[in-house]
Amino acid sequence: MVNKANGPAAREGTGRGRGRRPADEVRADVLRTVGELLLTEGIADLTFERVARTSGVSKTTLYKWWPSKGALALDGYVHAVQETLAFPDTADIRADLLTQLRAFAHVMTETPGGRVLTELIGESQTDQDLATAYREVYSSHRRRLAVERLHRAQEQGQIRADIDVQVLVDQLWGAVYHRLLIPDEPVTDAFVTALVGNLLDGVRPA
Amino acid sequence: MVNKANGPAAREGTGRGRGRRPADEVRADVLRTVGELLLTEGIADLTFERVARTSGVSKTTLYKWWPSKGALALDGYVHAVQETLAFPDTADIRADLLTQLRAFAHVMTETPGGRVLTELIGESQTDQDLATAYREVYSSHRRRLAVERLHRAQEQGQIRADIDVQVLVDQLWGAVYHRLLIPDEPVTDAFVTALVGNLLDGVRPA
Repeated sequence: MVNKANGPAAREGTGRGRGRRPADEVRADVLRTVGELLLTEGIADLTFERVARTSGVSKTTLYKWWPSKGALALDGYVHAVQETLAFPDTADIRADLLTQLRAFAHVMTETPGGRVLTELIGESQTDQDLATAYREVYSSHRRRLAVERLHRAQEQGQIRADIDVQVLVDQLWGAVYHRLLIPDEPVTDAFVTALVGNLLDGVRPA
Repeated sequence: MVNKANGPAAREGTGRGRGRRPADEVRADVLRTVGELLLTEGIADLTFERVARTSGVSKTTLYKWWPSKGALALDGYVHAVQETLAFPDTADIRADLLTQLRAFAHVMTETPGGRVLTELIGESQTDQDLATAYREVYSSHRRRLAVERLHRAQEQGQIRADIDVQVLVDQLWGAVYHRLLIPDEPVTDAFVTALVGNLLDGVRPA
């Protein structure tokens, strides 16, 4: 019975060129393809041509959904990293920030993902459309997730109520971006640990 | 006597095309011209052609000293802002950081200087020569000045001895760059004040 009910739909879902699949499913497939490509090879070899070939989706459809390579790359990147870069909540803000920031630093320094982001940020300094896409598809979304976790820490009494947690986003993740974009100093585990300690404990003598 | 000793040299120093002036003096003149141009008009209209015309120095000489527009812009920018962005030392690290960061935020948000830097940082993501020039001419020098001031605060017992002050550079100036490069949130005076307070006081409840 299970086979009968799921069989044809399941086959239709995986086969290509055998009738129409739901658009959501096709989109998710494309984003998976793009995300894998970005995290293994980087952005240089990402072309609509290649994504069309690999995913079996026409270039016309791809351009309809993602008007530029930057938009396609960002959306693929977001989908590729959303689980790795989730914000854990074990009710211990120090431990959770360290976990998340270490995962973030790993993606940024050990996979081509870091290069993808710094190049997109770079290009967005002179490309207004890309800057808008970057904020809408990626950065404002990531900022919101971070702020939500920091607000819960405030509710749990681990961060003072008078602190504007938006500023902490710039002093944690923003500080990492600073070292990636202007690499005078490296992103190390000691750096990540110090970012969290400096803010939670303060740097003045006791 | 004074006139006789200084007269001819002084006249030679200010006149153009009246014999050779010392190279250092000519260089300083060019950098002043470039710096003024950058802080009033931005980088878009900066060309070797125009700098040659304004400063009366041949393009050949300009190219010899600064092999690219990026290198020329950076050097001019450094000279234009070095006094405004000096690191004061009144023996009060909180007050001095606020003074310096406010001057920095002003240059970055109220003059074309901010755009100059963010565009150069942007371009340096894909231009290795510019990235090297940026670090050598600008960022590593600015970082060193900040670190020197923070080290003096450590010696004066205002910052704990176990703190790696390099990290504070990323959590103060780097946090400002983050808002400039990815403008999800604005650079305001409240932001600058919070940057300093969060680090000196910590964000945990007392």
